[in-house]
Amino acid sequence: MDPLFNPQSVAVVGVSTSKDNLGKNIVKNLVNFGYGGKIYPVGPRRDQVEGLPIYPSVADLPETPDVAVILTPARFVPDIVSQCGERGIRWAVIQTGGFRESGADGMELEKRLVEAAERHGLRFVGPNCLGVMDTSTGFFVPFITLPSTYRKGTVAVMAQSGGMGLSLVERLSTSGVGFGKFVSLGNKLNLDEAGYLKYLMEDPKTDIIYFYLEDFKRGREFFQRAGQSSKPIILHKSNTSPISRTIAQSHTAALAADDRLVDHLARAAGIVRVRSVSEAIQAAKAFSMPPLRGKNLAVLSRSGGHAVVAADTCGGFGFRFPPLSEEVLEEIRRHARAGVIRLGNPLDLGDIYDLNVYFGIVELVLKQPDIDGVVHIHVSHMPVEKDATRKLLIRLDRLAEEYQKPIAVVVEVPFEDRVTVEKEASYPFFLDVREAVEALAMQHNFHSRIEATPVAGEKEAGKPPWYDAAAAWIRSQRALGRQPLAHESLELLEILHIPTAPWKLTRSLGEARDAAAFLGYPVALKAVGESLLHKSDRGGVVVDIRDADALAEAWRRLGSLSADLEGILVQKMAVGMRELIVGGYQDPVFGPVVLAGLGGILVEVLQDVSMRLAPVDRTQALGMIQGLRCSAVLGRYRGLATADTDMAAETLVKVSLLIRHFPMVREVDINPILLKDRGGSALALDARVLLEKANDEDPLL
Amino acid sequence: MDPLFNPQSVAVVGVSTSKDNLGKNIVKNLVNFGYGGKIYPVGPRRDQVEGLPIYPSVADLPETPDVAVILTPARFVPDIVSQCGERGIRWAVIQTGGFRESGADGMELEKRLVEAAERHGLRFVGPNCLGVMDTSTGFFVPFITLPSTYRKGTVAVMAQSGGMGLSLVERLSTSGVGFGKFVSLGNKLNLDEAGYLKYLMEDPKTDIIYFYLEDFKRGREFFQRAGQSSKPIILHKSNTSPISRTIAQSHTAALAADDRLVDHLARAAGIVRVRSVSEAIQAAKAFSMPPLRGKNLAVLSRSGGHAVVAADTCGGFGFRFPPLSEEVLEEIRRHARAGVIRLGNPLDLGDIYDLNVYFGIVELVLKQPDIDGVVHIHVSHMPVEKDATRKLLIRLDRLAEEYQKPIAVVVEVPFEDRVTVEKEASYPFFLDVREAVEALAMQHNFHSRIEATPVAGEKEAGKPPWYDAAAAWIRSQRALGRQPLAHESLELLEILHIPTAPWKLTRSLGEARDAAAFLGYPVALKAVGESLLHKSDRGGVVVDIRDADALAEAWRRLGSLSADLEGILVQKMAVGMRELIVGGYQDPVFGPVVLAGLGGILVEVLQDVSMRLAPVDRTQALGMIQGLRCSAVLGRYRGLATADTDMAAETLVKVSLLIRHFPMVREVDINPILLKDRGGSALALDARVLLEKANDEDPLL
Repeated sequence: MDPLFNPQSVAVVGVSTSKDNLGKNIVKNLVNFGYGGKIYPVGPRRDQVEGLPIYPSVADLPETPDVAVILTPARFVPDIVSQCGERGIRWAVIQTGGFRESGADGMELEKRLVEAAERHGLRFVGPNCLGVMDTSTGFFVPFITLPSTYRKGTVAVMAQSGGMGLSLVERLSTSGVGFGKFVSLGNKLNLDEAGYLKYLMEDPKTDIIYFYLEDFKRGREFFQRAGQSSKPIILHKSNTSPISRTIAQSHTAALAADDRLVDHLARAAGIVRVRSVSEAIQAAKAFSMPPLRGKNLAVLSRSGGHAVVAADTCGGFGFRFPPLSEEVLEEIRRHARAGVIRLGNPLDLGDIYDLNVYFGIVELVLKQPDIDGVVHIHVSHMPVEKDATRKLLIRLDRLAEEYQKPIAVVVEVPFEDRVTVEKEASYPFFLDVREAVEALAMQHNFHSRIEATPVAGEKEAGKPPWYDAAAAWIRSQRALGRQPLAHESLELLEILHIPTAPWKLTRSLGEARDAAAFLGYPVALKAVGESLLHKSDRGGVVVDIRDADALAEAWRRLGSLSADLEGILVQKMAVGMRELIVGGYQDPVFGPVVLAGLGGILVEVLQDVSMRLAPVDRTQALGMIQGLRCSAVLGRYRGLATADTDMAAETLVKVSLLIRHFPMVREVDINPILLKDRGGSALALDARVLLEKANDEDPLL
Repeated sequence: MDPLFNPQSVAVVGVSTSKDNLGKNIVKNLVNFGYGGKIYPVGPRRDQVEGLPIYPSVADLPETPDVAVILTPARFVPDIVSQCGERGIRWAVIQTGGFRESGADGMELEKRLVEAAERHGLRFVGPNCLGVMDTSTGFFVPFITLPSTYRKGTVAVMAQSGGMGLSLVERLSTSGVGFGKFVSLGNKLNLDEAGYLKYLMEDPKTDIIYFYLEDFKRGREFFQRAGQSSKPIILHKSNTSPISRTIAQSHTAALAADDRLVDHLARAAGIVRVRSVSEAIQAAKAFSMPPLRGKNLAVLSRSGGHAVVAADTCGGFGFRFPPLSEEVLEEIRRHARAGVIRLGNPLDLGDIYDLNVYFGIVELVLKQPDIDGVVHIHVSHMPVEKDATRKLLIRLDRLAEEYQKPIAVVVEVPFEDRVTVEKEASYPFFLDVREAVEALAMQHNFHSRIEATPVAGEKEAGKPPWYDAAAAWIRSQRALGRQPLAHESLELLEILHIPTAPWKLTRSLGEARDAAAFLGYPVALKAVGESLLHKSDRGGVVVDIRDADALAEAWRRLGSLSADLEGILVQKMAVGMRELIVGGYQDPVFGPVVLAGLGGILVEVLQDVSMRLAPVDRTQALGMIQGLRCSAVLGRYRGLATADTDMAAETLVKVSLLIRHFPMVREVDINPILLKDRGGSALALDARVLLEKANDEDPLL
């Protein structure tokens, strides 16, 4: 996509000199921001803008431009794209609105636009967008008049709402961070979030990637790629409530993404999910500092109260405070009145009034090998210190770079001074102690993830050994024209070599007695029938049957439960203190997904589950289980040993492969899996499998 | 405390003309901020500051000032306080440091200081503080040079760290909020948090109360009073981690408050607990708006993306969006191009460019009776709109006042414009959509609390009917010289009329057999003995004994468990799906405290408990149970009916009264209480009571 950000030449289609023409703003922005390439305005009336001639069409241009920016009424756009394609133009930014967001006519136009672009292999941004900006090349093509300055930086801002995107670049520019590339994504008709992400992950000018998204076009690919990114990705996925959906930009076509799933996928991919511009700015500031490689901090503060607040926050994140070196202490002693400063870490600098000394102390602290980063809290309410403060803060810039350790600088100075400093500094400051410490924690989390567990994305494993048997089971089930019954789902588990509590389907009391005697009491009875599939609440299960008399009584009761009773399942009772559930399903937005949760009330009341794109490997599966909020339940607890989660993890892997290889498996739910203490084996007790109805395109038929 | 903020005259003790003298800064601040009363500098050398004569001592003043501000070396302070007392001065602000925070000598000085003040009935702020400020009277006595302007307002800032306090007033002043009274609390040797709170709750010039506290001197009184406040209280209680404690201001004497308890008490009292300056500012902004009386909002935004983010956030808080009135829609149609604006709520104003129209629309929306408040998102990136933006934002001020409905104004404009607007406006703006909506939610929570459940504070109930019996039990237990055994604690429950599962202490197998036959199988056996008090894990309990043989086997095993075995408790087995725990204890900082939690893994792993000051009444007790994070477990769940929590609530009330009336009851732990489905009665199964050793001052002996 380089030509989109750094074209040698650009055609701006839809320019006139009339007062209301927005196209000429584009030309103006290009000129004002010092774009160095050739600019070719195109419009129906011959004239000049910004001293440049307006050409009647792209066919008339003296050369083939790298990019066409198109802002004409929507009805002309498909033909203009065709003309661009014929002229050999390969990239376009289509700002025009009035496509899918305007109803049926717009949908028709959109179809023609897509066809025209495909015919010529032309790729485009938009439509219905504000365009592209690049601070490193001066390529600024929004159609609104922009503020005169933006700070250069290495954050890429990709926004599905132009307004949100502009808010972000504005605030990045006044936060010492700046930005590099900006794209207003619009309707994402051609280039989409997955494509931009791929490009930015490889773009040497981009260090931090921000996305504001209201929906996903290729959500699966987006998260798979994100998981492989060594650059931090900040995601604001909005449009999470029903009322939001009525107003979101491209509301007509997009499916609503399951927001809980988005959360899980973001976390798994190491994405920092934010929910506001402020949070995004905080994250961008965090990642603009050199990486925090360990958890050892020094806190230097002129105010004791602020140091206490910093220590509070650090405590919550598990940061440690190694003692300051003798060299640092000596420097402090040289400048402070004896006995007033309590020499420790966090350090209250309150008694030192010469701000130049602070600079030296920070540098000495950074030199200390067992300090990974510094929180420097600069409080100054004294008007006489204005200049010294400004100088100190700006000088701290280079120290962090030089030592490649983060200095989270907190500035608590009068408003005017802060404004000056924020505008001048090319290093981010924090206005709040807590925000600074949170930023360090966020950063440390990200960098330790990269170093500790490289996320592999989707490793497409080959067919599992049980593939053919599973396919046969699916075929035979579908031939029955109904959803699999309880015992049939258990059969699938056996095909997958998932251990189940021993069971037998019986059709008479005699058979049941024999089965119970064979399996050994106590047993459970489960009524099996199509109408009983979702009705375990309806009294279709009797547990803890201890002898033949109880069995007979239970049998009689279950036997009269439903007209379509196919039999009664006798299952060896298995008891255990701890349960997991494992499942998988086809998500309409993200495709095959696998989930694990703690059973019983923890999953039903607390919704404590972990979700991932399928398939997962064994390491990822164990990570899902250990990452559950209440995973402490699986550890030593109430005299129980640590639960054995290996079998559950293997089951997760198998379910994930099943759901990935067989799109017609709509849903799998294994609930519960009883966990034994480490050493014993876990057992699945029950399963439910739902299949899609067969259709002609289905390869399995 | 009025004289502390609005004295007719003030003595400033410790003034000289020498370069380093800080006392003269106090005089300077008083003059600069236009303090209207008489100022009497006092110091050893006769001279003048700011044109005012320096008096040699308070005895020499021409009149008795209302307040003395004292900033001399610590060793002189007790005598100066005596002199002030003799002169008839009743209020002092002691800024001098060097007391308890400086070790043994300081402690000695502190004692003398307290004695001197008590002898003369003199009340004082500090010592070791920055002093007092009041924007409504110009009484500014900090010893540092202050910025020249602060915004007047009705927030009172009470800060145990001068630095934190200054940060707050600085940011309040530049956030359209301002402040009224400021006190740097210092060591709180005389006036403390509970005293300031009482005064501010009644102060007509204070609408919002902010405290920054590092410890509590009278924490119990503080929270009791807070619960009765109709004014919002914002609390930043810091010093929550062990490392914080090493640097907190008054670290030598204060006990560390149980931070979890602080959380519970704050929530119960309707206090907004914050953990940073930014959060405090957000809360202050929230409460500066007129109250949000209902949950019906209108969102007006120039940017669709921002409206989506607002709707997302509103959805999370349960806000609703009624349709806009025909009058509003008509106004919009008059000004927008037909068909471009989708007329709904949230409303995208994107197509209306005349900012004057916005003002009219907001006013019409406020007139709508079914709209309780407005989120107005003003996005403007166009340099040409600068002036119009400024005017609009400042005009919105008065609308909220006029209609007594909150307008949460979000300002997304270029930095310079924002700075100008923030300085000029006397109404708070938000820089972030999410912050604005959160502020409305915070406000609504507070105001609905006030209206729905007046918190009664501590109603000192009379002695409960079982008071004498409980006292007798305590006396007899203490006579034994050891902690109560299992059966003795159960006896106390019976004295309190708390239903327990039937039990009998037995001393032979024969007795146990008879007891089991009488109670009915199944039963549980529990070994009872002093060394077994904390050792239910040690195998001292056998449950689910179904017949005499199993009883005999269990008896033999428990019988050999401990040399100090006092007997074996036979208890009727009671089973239930849901458990509560109820307890109480004497907290070293807050006094008698009561707690409730969900039993089993929910309390052990998730620490899901609810805590309050004891005693509680029945309504509060039910509120504690219903307020548990996982209280959904008590509702319909897995086919169970709603659990009956009445008996548990009554038990909570009783435990709270016990722990309140009998300070020698160190701890009570009833665990578990089995809940039956609504209708049945709940039963306590086990209890542990710990008593303080008797001492001579104990009224019960």
